[in-house]
Amino acid sequence: MAGASDTSVIGEADLRKFATGLLHAGGLTADHAEQTAAMLVWANTRGADSHGVLRIPRYVEMIELGLINPAASPTQVFAKGAVAVVDAQNAPGAVGMNIAARSAGELARAHGLGWCAVRSITHAGAIGYYAQQVAQAGLIGIAMTASKPLMIYHGSRADGVSTNPIAIAAPTSDPQLPFLLDMSTAAVAIGKVMAAKDAGRSLSPGWAVDEHGMETSDPRKVKSVLPMAGPKGSGLSLMIEVLASVLVGNPLISVALSQDGDPGGNGLVAALDPAAFGSDFTADVDRLRSAIKGLPPAEGVDEVYLPGERGFEESRKRFRDGIPIAQGTLKRLLALASKLNVPAPAGVG
Amino acid sequence: MAGASDTSVIGEADLRKFATGLLHAGGLTADHAEQTAAMLVWANTRGADSHGVLRIPRYVEMIELGLINPAASPTQVFAKGAVAVVDAQNAPGAVGMNIAARSAGELARAHGLGWCAVRSITHAGAIGYYAQQVAQAGLIGIAMTASKPLMIYHGSRADGVSTNPIAIAAPTSDPQLPFLLDMSTAAVAIGKVMAAKDAGRSLSPGWAVDEHGMETSDPRKVKSVLPMAGPKGSGLSLMIEVLASVLVGNPLISVALSQDGDPGGNGLVAALDPAAFGSDFTADVDRLRSAIKGLPPAEGVDEVYLPGERGFEESRKRFRDGIPIAQGTLKRLLALASKLNVPAPAGVG
Repeated sequence: MAGASDTSVIGEADLRKFATGLLHAGGLTADHAEQTAAMLVWANTRGADSHGVLRIPRYVEMIELGLINPAASPTQVFAKGAVAVVDAQNAPGAVGMNIAARSAGELARAHGLGWCAVRSITHAGAIGYYAQQVAQAGLIGIAMTASKPLMIYHGSRADGVSTNPIAIAAPTSDPQLPFLLDMSTAAVAIGKVMAAKDAGRSLSPGWAVDEHGMETSDPRKVKSVLPMAGPKGSGLSLMIEVLASVLVGNPLISVALSQDGDPGGNGLVAALDPAAFGSDFTADVDRLRSAIKGLPPAEGVDEVYLPGERGFEESRKRFRDGIPIAQGTLKRLLALASKLNVPAPAGVG
Repeated sequence: MAGASDTSVIGEADLRKFATGLLHAGGLTADHAEQTAAMLVWANTRGADSHGVLRIPRYVEMIELGLINPAASPTQVFAKGAVAVVDAQNAPGAVGMNIAARSAGELARAHGLGWCAVRSITHAGAIGYYAQQVAQAGLIGIAMTASKPLMIYHGSRADGVSTNPIAIAAPTSDPQLPFLLDMSTAAVAIGKVMAAKDAGRSLSPGWAVDEHGMETSDPRKVKSVLPMAGPKGSGLSLMIEVLASVLVGNPLISVALSQDGDPGGNGLVAALDPAAFGSDFTADVDRLRSAIKGLPPAEGVDEVYLPGERGFEESRKRFRDGIPIAQGTLKRLLALASKLNVPAPAGVG
């Protein structure tokens, strides 16, 4: 954690209440504001501050610009068997994706597995949040989201795919500690490039390119990030576009590459019910956890972690000790609060 | 293609017949031999020779050792809704995975999506083969396989996960040219490390470690390969173990890490029916293909490729001109043919 001068510490409940207040005053319904705030603060509790409450000013701006539709009423537009398709009507991303997580789980209980695609969502945030919801219901959850070109397509010098993320969560015997893989298809988060720029550090090989599409280690020259593992990252991202966007008739990449403007986003959640597979899932997944935790650490490494485990550790700490919010972030949130007449959390501002 | 002295060229049909003959004489039933040969030669046609007929001597050895069960009769052991679980009884990998591809497709036609898990398979080969079968039926196919620890787990100095691959195929309007992503979760194929060793070349950063678990660029010192993109590759591999192995009650990693011996393998194929999503899938996927093909190539790159496209190009060429087989591979196959009394292809041996 940074020193007291760099951050202000806010309790989880207070931060969530503040975030809800800002989003509600910014134009979302009370329910949509609460759902969005819960997702953002979840990311903050796990130490993923880049996906946390610092997004709120932009979300409010997106409402003002009409990019997020506060009057959206997400509606199921197609369904067959284990599949449901929902049109989110540009509702806040968390609202659409929460519906997908719930619907996929219900379909999985009925059919062994379920798949809910949600088209026309807006920014979904940290998608591990939706996969984890499915795992908390005792199911395996898979979440993906798709958006406009933001990353080099392997072999091209131009952005051709998004950094489309995928998250996979599996329940264990400890409801507080599922396996939770949450990864983007990019070689590096753009936030890390920005941090290197601020710190005057060079970039690692394979991270980013300059305006000519040539790899660069100079963060000041970065035009775009490279895909994770070259053709694997851009290929996986492209297939997520197929699964999340093309399959529901709301293509993003082909539209964005042929015309101006932001085509929005799409998402999906799939769920699998271990009971449909006839195994003793929980016992075996616990054994897998023990086997991985028992691996000998690499030199300089204290502990071998399971996917998502660091985030759960951080979350326990931040629920107990409060969430450190960077002064720059807090300043922007307080300015917005002042503008929207939202009370600041106790002891802050 | 290498010079005439390095390779012998064999037509696709001749090579498939030869491979079938060897596998049948080696102990497989005529049907299982044919299915296995078709999968191996498919890899050869695409230029993936490391997954082609060079595997046959080892497959025959596995039959002799009882690792592949030529009398296996794969049986559905559990089913619910859109899910089927098959016990392959250590049948040849292609036999189990072909069942999964067919079953997943049938389930998808009925339920919108389907998932067939196959436990106790043996070496599945190039898993793009199974995903492509699903795409050829007009559906989206996803295939994964799991095996024993073969790769460093991120943060450890020991092998803790396999190089578990995932393949995703989507149909387009051209049945000969689906999207076909087929990737392992390793940073590099072990075959590339071997090739660098033979050529006296250094390894790229992030590829492999020595016996102390320290990264090395010396191919002679390689003890194990690293995961693709660090925690992403080992995390994705671990989740494939959860989906393919833990979910069907045949865990591989926890068993292999706690006792000796090879626990075998598991696989799965999932299928999605575009008709269940209400979109004009083929038109939109074709548009996506055009958009990607229209991206400006990077410096030194002639053409931007879609996932799997290079393999389809090579396949057209090799179907027309024949498949070049390395002399070392051919020599081993001919020795086996001689031992098993199998006639060599015309003009060879």
